Amino acid sequence: MLQSLKRLLIGEPKATAEAPHERLSKPIALAVFSSDALSSVAYATEEILLILVLAGAAALTWSIAIAAVIGLLLFILTVSYRQTIHAYPSGGGAYSVSKDNLGIPAALLASAALLIDYVLTVAVSVAAGVAAITSAFPWLYGHRVLLGVIAVAGVAVANLRGVRESGRIFAVPTYLFIASFLGLIVLGLARIFFGNVPAVPSPIAPQAAVAAVTPFLILRAFASGCTALTGVEAISNGVPAFQRPEADNAKQTLAWMAGILLTLFLGITFLAREFGVQPREGETVISQLARMIVGTTSFYYILQAATALVLLLAANTSFAGFPRLSFLLARDGFLPRQFANRGDRLVFSNGIIILALLAALLLVFFHGDTHALIPLYAVGVFISFTLSQAGMVRRHLRLREVGWRRGALINGVGALTTGIVLMVIAATKFLHGAWLVVLVIPAVMRMFLAIRGHYGRVAGQLRLNHFDLPQRAAHTVLLLVSDIHMGTLHAVNYARAISSQAEAVYVGLDEEATKRMQARWAQWAREIPLVILDSPYRSIIRPLIEYVDKIQAERKVEFVTLILPQFVPARWWEHFLHNQTALRIKAGFYFRKGTVVIDVPFHLER
Amino acid sequence: MLQSLKRLLIGEPKATAEAPHERLSKPIALAVFSSDALSSVAYATEEILLILVLAGAAALTWSIAIAAVIGLLLFILTVSYRQTIHAYPSGGGAYSVSKDNLGIPAALLASAALLIDYVLTVAVSVAAGVAAITSAFPWLYGHRVLLGVIAVAGVAVANLRGVRESGRIFAVPTYLFIASFLGLIVLGLARIFFGNVPAVPSPIAPQAAVAAVTPFLILRAFASGCTALTGVEAISNGVPAFQRPEADNAKQTLAWMAGILLTLFLGITFLAREFGVQPREGETVISQLARMIVGTTSFYYILQAATALVLLLAANTSFAGFPRLSFLLARDGFLPRQFANRGDRLVFSNGIIILALLAALLLVFFHGDTHALIPLYAVGVFISFTLSQAGMVRRHLRLREVGWRRGALINGVGALTTGIVLMVIAATKFLHGAWLVVLVIPAVMRMFLAIRGHYGRVAGQLRLNHFDLPQRAAHTVLLLVSDIHMGTLHAVNYARAISSQAEAVYVGLDEEATKRMQARWAQWAREIPLVILDSPYRSIIRPLIEYVDKIQAERKVEFVTLILPQFVPARWWEHFLHNQTALRIKAGFYFRKGTVVIDVPFHLER
Repeated sequence: MLQSLKRLLIGEPKATAEAPHERLSKPIALAVFSSDALSSVAYATEEILLILVLAGAAALTWSIAIAAVIGLLLFILTVSYRQTIHAYPSGGGAYSVSKDNLGIPAALLASAALLIDYVLTVAVSVAAGVAAITSAFPWLYGHRVLLGVIAVAGVAVANLRGVRESGRIFAVPTYLFIASFLGLIVLGLARIFFGNVPAVPSPIAPQAAVAAVTPFLILRAFASGCTALTGVEAISNGVPAFQRPEADNAKQTLAWMAGILLTLFLGITFLAREFGVQPREGETVISQLARMIVGTTSFYYILQAATALVLLLAANTSFAGFPRLSFLLARDGFLPRQFANRGDRLVFSNGIIILALLAALLLVFFHGDTHALIPLYAVGVFISFTLSQAGMVRRHLRLREVGWRRGALINGVGALTTGIVLMVIAATKFLHGAWLVVLVIPAVMRMFLAIRGHYGRVAGQLRLNHFDLPQRAAHTVLLLVSDIHMGTLHAVNYARAISSQAEAVYVGLDEEATKRMQARWAQWAREIPLVILDSPYRSIIRPLIEYVDKIQAERKVEFVTLILPQFVPARWWEHFLHNQTALRIKAGFYFRKGTVVIDVPFHLER
Repeated sequence: MLQSLKRLLIGEPKATAEAPHERLSKPIALAVFSSDALSSVAYATEEILLILVLAGAAALTWSIAIAAVIGLLLFILTVSYRQTIHAYPSGGGAYSVSKDNLGIPAALLASAALLIDYVLTVAVSVAAGVAAITSAFPWLYGHRVLLGVIAVAGVAVANLRGVRESGRIFAVPTYLFIASFLGLIVLGLARIFFGNVPAVPSPIAPQAAVAAVTPFLILRAFASGCTALTGVEAISNGVPAFQRPEADNAKQTLAWMAGILLTLFLGITFLAREFGVQPREGETVISQLARMIVGTTSFYYILQAATALVLLLAANTSFAGFPRLSFLLARDGFLPRQFANRGDRLVFSNGIIILALLAALLLVFFHGDTHALIPLYAVGVFISFTLSQAGMVRRHLRLREVGWRRGALINGVGALTTGIVLMVIAATKFLHGAWLVVLVIPAVMRMFLAIRGHYGRVAGQLRLNHFDLPQRAAHTVLLLVSDIHMGTLHAVNYARAISSQAEAVYVGLDEEATKRMQARWAQWAREIPLVILDSPYRSIIRPLIEYVDKIQAERKVEFVTLILPQFVPARWWEHFLHNQTALRIKAGFYFRKGTVVIDVPFHLER
C-alpha cells in the first residue's frame, strides 16, 4: 500500500539508461535555475524599506540609491560567473571551484555555507510566497505556517518525480511572473509620466523614527537588499543539466536572467518610492503597490498568484542544488553515501527529502515569517560567492590559459566586492540572527570532517593486502532452543544444513523443565546433541556468552554461529508476543568478534 | 553504564534458589497488603463531604450515617474474604476464584476490572499522598503532577528491588500512620468530651447549595465513600506471600486490618462532622481537622508525613497485585509471555514497569487531581468483589465441603451486597467518569482473547506430529557483495564455512563497475563463483528476489540463505553511514518462506 502511494506521488521508476536525456532547454532552464534570483524581487525592496523606515518615512528615498548599488553588484557577479561557467562546463559550484583551487578546507566552508543557504532559500521563498497569498486573502494569514509546510511538501514531491517534469510544471508561472511585473512597471511608469500618482495615503500606523539616517543604517538596508542576489550562482552549479553546448547555453541564460532581474528590481524599487509605499504587517509592499496602480482587479490577483508560484519555483531551485551538492560531498566521502544514490526517478531522493524536512522545521520555528529569516540568509551566499570568485582568480593565475589576465581581473573584482559585501552583511546583521549561521557553519564543517575521517579509517581497514582465503574456516554451529516444537525442528533442519556437527543448547532455568526437555529431545531430535547450560540467576544470555567464550578458547574456531528460531507472525501486533529474548541475545553478541547470530524464521499462519 | 545504573537502583541479581524464603511475617504483611484499604481513610471522608456539600453545609451531617453503612459493608466483605482465604490458600484472587467457579468470561471480566483498578489505585493514592504534602506546604501545590510522577517512579524502583525489602522499608510509616490517626481521634474525642470545640469557622468561600438532599445525592455520596473499601481484597490475592501457615496468618491479618480501618474511618468522619470541617481546594479535610485539633504543630507535620507515606504504601499494594495478576494471566496465555518472567530480583519486572507507566500517564492526564480520578475508581473494584463472592457461592454449592451451607450464606450475602453497591456506583457515577472504565473493560477483555487466540493458533501450528528429520536439507548459500574488500573476504570465508557450494551475487548498476568487479573478483576470491544480476532500475532488492525465486523454482532447495556482509562501527553515529541497504533487504525477505538472511559482522576499529 505504501508502495502504491509512492507510485501515485512520484511515478513509475525510470531505467538508468534514460538518464542522459534529462536535459533542459534554455527557456526551461531559465525557469528552473533563475527563479531564486528573480523571485527575490518579491521581497528584496521590502527588506530595504523595512530598515530605512526605522529612520522615519523620509529616509525611504534612500532606497533607489541602495538598489542601484545592488544592481552594480549584480553586474559584477554576472560577468564573474560567466568565467566560472566557461572554466567548469561540468558544473562549477562553489564546492568544485574551491576544492580545485583553494583546497579542501575552503571547499568545505563553501559547501557548509551553501547547504545552509539552500535550506534558507526554501524557507524564505516559501514564507514570501505565502505572504503574497495572505496579502490577497488576509483571512489566510493565521494559517501561514501550515500553508508553508504544505508548499514545501508539494515542491519536494514534484522534485522526487524528476527534473524535466518539474521544469515543465514551473515554466508557465515564471514567464507569467516576468510579464506581469513588467506590465506593472510599465503601467506604474505611465501613471507617473501622466502625473496620475495618488496622494500618498497616510499609513494606518505612521512609523515614528526610532533611528537616525546613519551610514550603519544605510549599510544595514543594503545588506538586507543583497538578498536580491541570492541564487545568481544557481546556473553555474547546474551547467550539466543544460542541453548541448552546455556552457554557451548556460552563459546566455545567465545574461538573460541578470537583465530581467535588474529591470524588475530597479523598477519596483523606483515605483515604491514614487508611490510612497511603506512596509506594514499583513500586506507585502508589492501587493500595496499593485493595488495603488491597478486596484484590486483580476490583474492584481494574477500578479499575486504569479509571485507566489515563482517563489515556489525559487524553492525549487534549491531542490535542484542541494541534492546535487550533497551528491558531490557524498561522492568525496564528506556526507553519508546514501546521498550519492539516485532514486527510482533518477533524482537524488535522500537530498530532496532532507532539504524538505529542514526547511519545514525552519518555517515552523520562525512562524513562517520572511523578515525573521532574512538576517540568516545572505551570509552563507556571500561566503560561497567570495570563495568561488577567489578560487577562479587562483585558477587563472595557475593555468594561465588564453585571456587569463582579463579573467583574473574580472574574478578579482568579483572576489573583492563580494568579500567586502560579506563583511558588511556579517557586521550589520550579526546581532539580528547572523550569529546563528556563524555558529552552524563550523558545526557542519566538523560533521563533514568526522564523516570523511570515518570513511577513511574504514577504507584503511578494508584494503585488500595479501589476503589468502583459508581452505575452509573452522566453524561451530549452536542452536539455541527453549522448547521443542515444529519451529524447533525447522531450525534443527537448518542447523544440519549448514553444519554436520551442529549442537543444540538449552538454558535450564529449573530442574524439572530441564529433565522434561532432555526426554523430549531424545524422542524427537536425537540427530543433534543437546547441551544443557545451568542458569541460577534466570539469565538466558550470560550462560550463553560463557559457553561461547569456552568454545572460542578451546576449539580455536574462526566462527561461532548462534541460530535463534524466530517466529514471524502474520499480524503486526503479534510481534509484541514473541522474540523479545532473541532481540536481547542479538544485542548481547552484536559487538563480539567471531560470532554470527542467525534468525531462522518460522512463518506462522493466521 | 546502563547496567551499573540498574545495579545501583535495584541491587544485585538473586538466584532462583533464594525464591521460597521471600515470605512476609504478619506485621510486615499488614504493612504491605493493608495500606491500600487503610490509606483510603485519608480521602474517603472528604469524597463523601464533597458530594454532600452540593446540598449546602447542613447536608454534611449525613456523612456519619453513610460512613456507618460503609462500615457494615466492610464487615460483610471481611467475613466473606475469610472464606476465600480458607478455600484458596495458594492465592484466591478474583481471577482464580472466577476461573475456577464461573468460567473464563467471568474470570476475564474480573481481571480486566482488577488490572484497571490497580492502575487507578496507584494514581489515586499518589495524588492523595501529594495532596497531604501540598496541604502542609502550599507552595508545592503547583508542582503536584511532577511530585506524583516522581513518587510513582520511586515506588516502582523499590518494588523492582524485591518484596521483602519493600515490606521492611514501608512497615514503619504504616504503624506511624495508624498511631497518629488514633492519636488524633483520641485528642479530638477528648476535646468534644470536655466541650472544647472551637466555634465552626466560617468557610473561606461559603458553599451555596446547588442541589437538594435527594436519595440520589445520598447514594452518590455513598458511592464516593465506597472508595474506602478498595484494597480489602489485597490480602486474599497475596496469601502465598505469607509465612506458614499462610491461610491462618492471612485471615488474622485481614481481621486486624478491617478493625483498624473501621475505627479510623468512623472516627475521622465523626470528628469532621463535629468540628464542622468543609472540603475546599488546596487543603485536605484531614489537614484542616488536624490543624483544628492540634494546631500546626510538629504532631501535625508527623500526621501529614505519615499520611503521605502510607498512601505511597497503598500504591505499593498495587505493585504487588498487578504483576502477580499479570503473571497469572500470562501463564494462561491471556497476556504476553514476558509478564510471566521473573526479573533479576525474583519479581515480575515487566508488570511493575507497565503499571508505573500507566499510573504516571493517568496522573499527567488528570493533572494529579484525586477528585477527578475517584469516579473512575470504585466500579472496577466492585465488579471483582461481586464476581469473587459469586464464585465462592458456586464453589460451596459444587464441592459441599464441611460447613458449605454457612459458607454459601456468607458469600451469598457478600455477592448480593457488593452486586447492589456495584449498580449504585455505576448508576450514580456514570456521567462523572465511570463511563470511561465501562468502555475500557471490554477493550481489555478483547485484548485478552486476541492474545489467547494467537497463542492457541501458534501452539496448533507448532504441535509435534510424526515429524521425521530429513537426512540433510538441500541448501543454497548466496553471498551478496557490492564491492570487494576485507569485509567481503571475511564474508566469503563464512559462506564457505557453511556451504561448499556458496555463490557470490553482485547487482550490477552500471556496466563499467560490473566489469571492474568481475576482474577484481577473479583476482581475490576465485574460490567461489560470482553471479552478476543486471538492474536497469537501480534497485538492489528486486533482481535479488527474482533470482531467489528462480533458485527456489529450479533447484527445489529447502533453504536459500542470503549472507549480507555487515559493518559494525565502533561509534554510535557511524551506524548512520552504513548498512542502510541491508535493512531494506532484510525487510524485503522477512515474510518469505524458505529464506534465511544472515548478517556476517565485520567489526570496524576506531
